[in-house]
Amino acid sequence: MGGKIAPSLMCADFLHLEETLSALDRASVDYLHIDIMDGAFVPNFTLGPDFVQAVRQATRIPLDFHLMVDHPERHLHLFPVREGDIVSVHQESTPHLQRTLQQIKSLGASASVALNPATSVLSIEDVLDDIDMILVMTVNPGFAGQKLVPATLQKISRLRKYLEERDCGHIEIEVDGNVSMENAKKMRQAGADIFVAGTSSVFKPGADLVALTQALREAVA
Amino acid sequence: MGGKIAPSLMCADFLHLEETLSALDRASVDYLHIDIMDGAFVPNFTLGPDFVQAVRQATRIPLDFHLMVDHPERHLHLFPVREGDIVSVHQESTPHLQRTLQQIKSLGASASVALNPATSVLSIEDVLDDIDMILVMTVNPGFAGQKLVPATLQKISRLRKYLEERDCGHIEIEVDGNVSMENAKKMRQAGADIFVAGTSSVFKPGADLVALTQALREAVA
Amino acid sequence: MGGKIAPSLMCADFLHLEETLSALDRASVDYLHIDIMDGAFVPNFTLGPDFVQAVRQATRIPLDFHLMVDHPERHLHLFPVREGDIVSVHQESTPHLQRTLQQIKSLGASASVALNPATSVLSIEDVLDDIDMILVMTVNPGFAGQKLVPATLQKISRLRKYLEERDCGHIEIEVDGNVSMENAKKMRQAGADIFVAGTSSVFKPGADLVALTQALREAVA
Amino acid sequence: MGGKIAPSLMCADFLHLEETLSALDRASVDYLHIDIMDGAFVPNFTLGPDFVQAVRQATRIPLDFHLMVDHPERHLHLFPVREGDIVSVHQESTPHLQRTLQQIKSLGASASVALNPATSVLSIEDVLDDIDMILVMTVNPGFAGQKLVPATLQKISRLRKYLEERDCGHIEIEVDGNVSMENAKKMRQAGADIFVAGTSSVFKPGADLVALTQALREAVA
Amino acid sequence: MGGKIAPSLMCADFLHLEETLSALDRASVDYLHIDIMDGAFVPNFTLGPDFVQAVRQATRIPLDFHLMVDHPERHLHLFPVREGDIVSVHQESTPHLQRTLQQIKSLGASASVALNPATSVLSIEDVLDDIDMILVMTVNPGFAGQKLVPATLQKISRLRKYLEERDCGHIEIEVDGNVSMENAKKMRQAGADIFVAGTSSVFKPGADLVALTQALREAVA
Amino acid sequence: MGGKIAPSLMCADFLHLEETLSALDRASVDYLHIDIMDGAFVPNFTLGPDFVQAVRQATRIPLDFHLMVDHPERHLHLFPVREGDIVSVHQESTPHLQRTLQQIKSLGASASVALNPATSVLSIEDVLDDIDMILVMTVNPGFAGQKLVPATLQKISRLRKYLEERDCGHIEIEVDGNVSMENAKKMRQAGADIFVAGTSSVFKPGADLVALTQALREAVA
Repeated sequence: MGGKIAPSLMCADFLHLEETLSALDRASVDYLHIDIMDGAFVPNFTLGPDFVQAVRQATRIPLDFHLMVDHPERHLHLFPVREGDIVSVHQESTPHLQRTLQQIKSLGASASVALNPATSVLSIEDVLDDIDMILVMTVNPGFAGQKLVPATLQKISRLRKYLEERDCGHIEIEVDGNVSMENAKKMRQAGADIFVAGTSSVFKPGADLVALTQALREAVA
Repeated sequence: MGGKIAPSLMCADFLHLEETLSALDRASVDYLHIDIMDGAFVPNFTLGPDFVQAVRQATRIPLDFHLMVDHPERHLHLFPVREGDIVSVHQESTPHLQRTLQQIKSLGASASVALNPATSVLSIEDVLDDIDMILVMTVNPGFAGQKLVPATLQKISRLRKYLEERDCGHIEIEVDGNVSMENAKKMRQAGADIFVAGTSSVFKPGADLVALTQALREAVA
Repeated sequence: MGGKIAPSLMCADFLHLEETLSALDRASVDYLHIDIMDGAFVPNFTLGPDFVQAVRQATRIPLDFHLMVDHPERHLHLFPVREGDIVSVHQESTPHLQRTLQQIKSLGASASVALNPATSVLSIEDVLDDIDMILVMTVNPGFAGQKLVPATLQKISRLRKYLEERDCGHIEIEVDGNVSMENAKKMRQAGADIFVAGTSSVFKPGADLVALTQALREAVA
Repeated sequence: MGGKIAPSLMCADFLHLEETLSALDRASVDYLHIDIMDGAFVPNFTLGPDFVQAVRQATRIPLDFHLMVDHPERHLHLFPVREGDIVSVHQESTPHLQRTLQQIKSLGASASVALNPATSVLSIEDVLDDIDMILVMTVNPGFAGQKLVPATLQKISRLRKYLEERDCGHIEIEVDGNVSMENAKKMRQAGADIFVAGTSSVFKPGADLVALTQALREAVA
Repeated sequence: MGGKIAPSLMCADFLHLEETLSALDRASVDYLHIDIMDGAFVPNFTLGPDFVQAVRQATRIPLDFHLMVDHPERHLHLFPVREGDIVSVHQESTPHLQRTLQQIKSLGASASVALNPATSVLSIEDVLDDIDMILVMTVNPGFAGQKLVPATLQKISRLRKYLEERDCGHIEIEVDGNVSMENAKKMRQAGADIFVAGTSSVFKPGADLVALTQALREAVA
Repeated sequence: MGGKIAPSLMCADFLHLEETLSALDRASVDYLHIDIMDGAFVPNFTLGPDFVQAVRQATRIPLDFHLMVDHPERHLHLFPVREGDIVSVHQESTPHLQRTLQQIKSLGASASVALNPATSVLSIEDVLDDIDMILVMTVNPGFAGQKLVPATLQKISRLRKYLEERDCGHIEIEVDGNVSMENAKKMRQAGADIFVAGTSSVFKPGADLVALTQALREAVA
């Protein structure tokens, strides 16, 4: 099975969201990646529950929430999470990671831990039973359009190996940050399963979103 | 001169933003009200700079930023503020209110202080020279669709009187929260100048945004 | 009608709580004052919901919660508040005072604002419609056994006058801190209605709790 | 030598504390476990220094403090810690863990690090010289009556092995959370030494505290 | 009696501090103003206790501490405060202002409240009994070399009048920020008593510190 | 090549800084170590940008910044960092370590991670590509004059071995805290490269700074 595609709505054409969603539907993307920022955990703001609710009502594509917020356990209830969705919370954002992952599972969604570039794979040793996915940040979170942190390619390989050695091959690896066609290939080879697609790949002004998504899908086949 | 209308984009149809903006343009609204939330100062999230940038490029209507965030002085630089815009920061959100208002003015925008329902008019005594507007919250900030806090009607009158007594009649009063047609009239009589329009007035599913805006304008004529 | 008595459970004999509650019942006290501290808003810790639950089940005396915690709106749900109780939150502890008072009222309890010694009466001007009581701290919160801040006596008078002038004579004034027999008399003359009784009055090792409570009641008759 | 028992006073009968302490004395428990919560590190409140002082004066059983608070180094001075006691602070609660452990030792008590379910054993590598005990949370901290996090059983084994390999066999392991008779046995087999006993084992309404404690002791013999 | 001069050590020649102190001694300045910043209450850092200790040992000029830090009550113990000194804490920096002022008095020093440009005089109504001085910030705190906030001149007059009306004529007013020769004169006329002297007046590269101090003294005679 | 010496300016003679700098210049020290504290990450304050600027202008010795502050990424811009300098930020002080290290490199300086005594070497696994140095705290940060944490000697060895095994032999190890002549030798043997020199070695009242520096240099040759 090939890699899965999760276009980031932060990069969507906000003026014509319905058309964007419709194109993403035609492109058979696997998830819609939703970035939530609080200005504190990361120094930026993006989208909120009302926006997500509008998306939810316009498409059946599952949502892939990425909570870049302090204490995500306090904010989870705001979002329309449901079965089939993914919710990622940062290892660095709460001392109650296991409880937060349990909360996510109790909503029927897949639970995931996001790791900043500096955060070691070793830090998730004790939640392997609680997660379905790991989100490896390949840039520092907070802004679109950044350059790949080179060491993160090798981190994906190390993580994939780490998971295999612990009989956790079922845990998927998502990558987020400068997922260009070229980088996506390398990430795929390193062991990534799900690819957050932004301005480096599928969202290019004037270009065909469906065609670019198809190209990315082939890159990570 | 009649009251001014500032529809809240938090209540817009996110799936068809361009059409909404176009309708608001036809309706000759005075401002587009932009709510920014951080999950900390208020327990919710809404929109971010990328969204605002898209709006900015699609319309010439001035923007009316309402920063519901802790330490707005640290985040102001993220937003595409320009001459003709308004930026409101909460009295309760920073110990450096005067510096923040200066920052806003240096961007060419009108500077405003927002007051939560419990915050006394007396708290702004020392920034009257620094502001062009006061945003009176008529509900508690953070969520759309709340009921009016009744005491805020009288607060508008008190504030208007307070301003007149200090030769500050030029400072405008904006009201935000449950601005229905009926409440808007009372707020206008009490001394409000600018009306944030949301789900209580102009954004009603299935109804004509332009007609409702016109109705609201007449209500506050 | 005479002043009401609210013994502070923080000063109770924890080893024999049932007997203490029984004595307080016999003494016909009006409320049981419950101090909740978080180590952050005040530099101390006291009691929690489980303790309060035990008290609730052992007596019908209404509870008088005093939340000395940051962001009380986030913690209110932990406590077994019900009709007839009072809940005080500090003016200094949240930017969302009016919303917090609404929350308290929605639980059926009386809502109250607590004021630290340095906090001006003027700060509550905009919540007079939302409160049933004002808790005037006559020492700084956080510890039992402190000496009266002298200026607070005059503050009670000023507050009583302030309330009368605004047709808010129904709002009761509670005093907390070094409420000795002697101080209680002065506080009563100044306009206090409810007296938090601690180690300065009714809780004295070896002395009769019921008799001391009766003496305090006479002091504030 | 068998496992040690540390009943949690958070679960005690607050109305008859002296009797409870007397029963625990007769049951020859090894420690009294005292949970301190700040509403921030964990979303709950429990007991404070005055309560602990009362307990201290009523019994000679050593105290086993569990500080579930942010920055425990700032609050340690509030508590009547003495030789023979244990104080646990969370790895996740301060960047100055070694300094805090030194502070505890300087009071004559045994120093311990508490680990949330998600926190890896690897995080304490550099304080092995500074600790006498490790508190493994087998549920997420903050509330009584939760279900065991299954992966924590294996964590105890891993931790025991980790300690043996580093010549740290003298460091004891305490377990806290859903320590039922059945779970206690498994935890004992995995390598636990001290068992925090709550509503899952010794504190059952209507049941004999002494007998249940004896049963638990046998379970972990 | 003329105005008092308090040169700010933040503007001193750090390379030749002893000479600077010696010159200030010859210039018979009344106080040495010491700015302490924490990077959080204000976005800058300056000096610390070790530096102050060195100054203390080199001169008998009383110190005038200006704590621009969050929760000054937690940091006060770090500084070598003694009788004859002044310590100012910001009204905006702690909910426990009266307790903090008491702490300062217990060290034998004069207690003072500092007010940011936006902070109303009304906010100190309840600590008039606790203070010897009020520090009116005439620029926003955190950086040297800023331009006067014009409204603060009138604020000084209002404050002076406010104090007279309350029989608090003994409370001195200190001004801090852009205290040039020209501004100092206006501030003196408005009612200021103590003048923090920085780069706008006495500390000018290449100029004579003693002569400039004398000139400032005459300006505020 | 022998070990490098970085005297800590926090321990300098503040009254005669120019002379101290001149002596350090004659002593051919390798760096000037600059401690920045915020009262929050560590409970103390020291120096600020203005002081550093004065130092910068008086000497060509490279600066070795040690930021003991929360969120160093927000404060970095305050300091006159340039090529040849080192900047250390604490692993425990920000969730965005890699971004902060990138920021430092973009200023032309060497980037370094500082580790508190309790912080494991494993925590920097993912930033080895981003750093030129690791600062091993051999006491807890915040105060001069503390006793060595014994386990940190072995930590230096482990770290040196860890680096060699990962082909990171070029990454230097700096040690900070109780670097006496005797301890310095042991630290050198364990693998340290740069030695922060304070009151335990070169700054001794009445002693010759140049001679002591030379002695330390020989100790770590």
